[in-house]
Amino acid sequence: MTRPDTTRLVMKFGGTSMGDLERIRRAARIVAAEVSAGKQVAVVVSAMAGKTNELVAWTDGAGPAAAGLPLSDDEYDVVVASGEQVTSGLLAATLRNMGFNARSWMGWQVPILTDDAHARARIIDIPGEKLGAAVDAGEIAIVPGFQGVTSDGKITTLGRGGSDTSAVAVAAALGCPCDIYTDVDGVYTTDPRIENRARRLAKVSYEEMLEMASLGAKVLQTRSVELAMAKQVPVRVLSSFIEPDANGVMPDKGGTLICDEEEIVEKRIVSGVTMSRDEARITLLGLSDRVDAPADVFTRLAEANVNVDMIVQSQSRTAGTVNLTFTTGRRDAVRAADLMTAAKEQLGFEEIRVDEDVAKVSVVGVGMRSHAGVAQTMFKALADKGVKFQAISTSEIKISVLIDAAYAELAVRALHSAYGLDAV
Amino acid sequence: MTRPDTTRLVMKFGGTSMGDLERIRRAARIVAAEVSAGKQVAVVVSAMAGKTNELVAWTDGAGPAAAGLPLSDDEYDVVVASGEQVTSGLLAATLRNMGFNARSWMGWQVPILTDDAHARARIIDIPGEKLGAAVDAGEIAIVPGFQGVTSDGKITTLGRGGSDTSAVAVAAALGCPCDIYTDVDGVYTTDPRIENRARRLAKVSYEEMLEMASLGAKVLQTRSVELAMAKQVPVRVLSSFIEPDANGVMPDKGGTLICDEEEIVEKRIVSGVTMSRDEARITLLGLSDRVDAPADVFTRLAEANVNVDMIVQSQSRTAGTVNLTFTTGRRDAVRAADLMTAAKEQLGFEEIRVDEDVAKVSVVGVGMRSHAGVAQTMFKALADKGVKFQAISTSEIKISVLIDAAYAELAVRALHSAYGLDAV
Repeated sequence: MTRPDTTRLVMKFGGTSMGDLERIRRAARIVAAEVSAGKQVAVVVSAMAGKTNELVAWTDGAGPAAAGLPLSDDEYDVVVASGEQVTSGLLAATLRNMGFNARSWMGWQVPILTDDAHARARIIDIPGEKLGAAVDAGEIAIVPGFQGVTSDGKITTLGRGGSDTSAVAVAAALGCPCDIYTDVDGVYTTDPRIENRARRLAKVSYEEMLEMASLGAKVLQTRSVELAMAKQVPVRVLSSFIEPDANGVMPDKGGTLICDEEEIVEKRIVSGVTMSRDEARITLLGLSDRVDAPADVFTRLAEANVNVDMIVQSQSRTAGTVNLTFTTGRRDAVRAADLMTAAKEQLGFEEIRVDEDVAKVSVVGVGMRSHAGVAQTMFKALADKGVKFQAISTSEIKISVLIDAAYAELAVRALHSAYGLDAV
Repeated sequence: MTRPDTTRLVMKFGGTSMGDLERIRRAARIVAAEVSAGKQVAVVVSAMAGKTNELVAWTDGAGPAAAGLPLSDDEYDVVVASGEQVTSGLLAATLRNMGFNARSWMGWQVPILTDDAHARARIIDIPGEKLGAAVDAGEIAIVPGFQGVTSDGKITTLGRGGSDTSAVAVAAALGCPCDIYTDVDGVYTTDPRIENRARRLAKVSYEEMLEMASLGAKVLQTRSVELAMAKQVPVRVLSSFIEPDANGVMPDKGGTLICDEEEIVEKRIVSGVTMSRDEARITLLGLSDRVDAPADVFTRLAEANVNVDMIVQSQSRTAGTVNLTFTTGRRDAVRAADLMTAAKEQLGFEEIRVDEDVAKVSVVGVGMRSHAGVAQTMFKALADKGVKFQAISTSEIKISVLIDAAYAELAVRALHSAYGLDAV
């Protein structure tokens, strides 16, 4: 979108905010406050907290499809999509009870068109005319998140956490901003449970949020941030625990606005420090120094869909060989190690070591693009605390280091302070 | 339909048969047995037992729509229809797990077109081509009962018990018979809990079933029998507790076939004896014997939507007045009495009495049309047991008497015996 329509607004409530009738009423009061303040609103909702897990357990109990038959992913979608159907109907009825004109729109009614990759579908298109006409006519449109429909009319779901993506996609279709109500009141410079001097960011750029989301900050689903960036949808993350006052007026929303870099006036070099324990380090000791040996290793991993993040090659003690270290997500580690071990002869290495006792600590900030010395600050801060790093990876706006897991929180606090992020 | 297609078959399973994954597996084995025996099958399912009540309670909790807004019946439908969506997906997945090709079809996918009377919609049409092509191609089509869609694409439900009607309507669309699996193994000559010599009827005509259904036999929803009669769909009521044997072959199904009168070779004069306690008797004592006084009474009741069943007018002790007795359903009794009392002056009666301690006992049978003496047998049997009746109503194929509730079971047993229905 070129310029978002600030009369229209998409609001998204997660499973906790839809957890029972009392919470649905609170969400309805928040929606009502926006409508009373003049907004034309569409609301995207998750299923009641815990409901999706129950439905998924039932489909698991039905068992996998027999050999020769299509997977039951399409029937999984039929079952699991019902959770959001329930909450959309309940929120619409609750709003009518409060005197507001509201109506639910199922994924197939909007329609939210997806591909046919059942259980992990991607949104292809949302024709926004019908929904837009409805909200412009003063109707509050309630849309179940997480679900869509294929072009030939079968129900799909987007995969876990897909409701954020639904909300951003609906906002893109309506050409308006998107407020995402969550358990937290915004995006922080780091996890406040690790560093109590962490500060809420008033604004963060799409690129930074994307790095922070994929690096372990669990505020928003990565795909929803990618979509917001691609469609230039301003997304605000804010707490569902705020309440309109006795007159139905919302207090200052606060939260964090995720927006285009250019709209952030006060530039920071580093916006946040993140930490992930979902890492494993695999080292091949004494690997042949044939020039194509590393390529052979990474081709085998790629073919097995194992994502490799950091890579370090170092001298070995044995002449004619090197040590090759790489990291993967923890759940891929065993599979990756098995693949390597199975190909030990062909690859020609002496020994394999797997270490899951590692963590990845990253600093993220668009300001890095124009500032030198960011890496030096990082290395010095870690060295001052005696933290050694085992590998490094960088992008244009982030630097990550792999360290001993025991030092993870210490490192986060040291970096948070070193980049001047501590609240005063 | 002129002649049902006996290769195709619609099977319907109620909420108890869908109560949990193990019961869904048993239903799947019954379906599999029919498919293995060469049938092309569509299955209509209810929600898990208890689930619809839970969903209804949630919509109740959302409260009624505020004044000036449309009712929330459409949102009630969105919420409540989700129960059958879940069981259809689970049954389809379970059948695939067992090696059968199955797919769920939501009401809006078939489509099952209804009017827009949300929460109590009536089926208008089911275009059977797509579903028919699917079952002919060997796919087991699973259709959620109870739900439909309006011509402009909004979800509807048929009202409680509507899944039987869905099943019969799908059978009519496919031009085939309908097997309804229930908690009981068929239709009995009377309630076996009252008379243990009650016998299961191998066949019963649509007309008889209709009288028996509306008179208190709770086997099938009345509307489903009306539809079966109108569309000439042969309906079999049978027990969901039968199981295919180790080879996946079904035992003799038994049950009761509900069919056209002409297909019943062995004619009985009386097929069944029913009893209902959902009755109230209201008497206006000393009502003016103006010729238009009764019309005034019944016009007032009709305008208030109170259904009146039996009517008796008798001499009063006061000259120039009569006593007028009529019966209503028990839940209408207070309202009817209030209406009468409010109009006491205009109607001109002396006293009103309401008696809820009454029961209606009926004998039903298409054979009555061609046999005299049916009523005499009834009156003699009741007189022999000292049971007095307070009112009578008749149709072409039934006779009902209103009696003191204390004698209800005694009367049922006496009539069951008098018409030769007792099992030997």
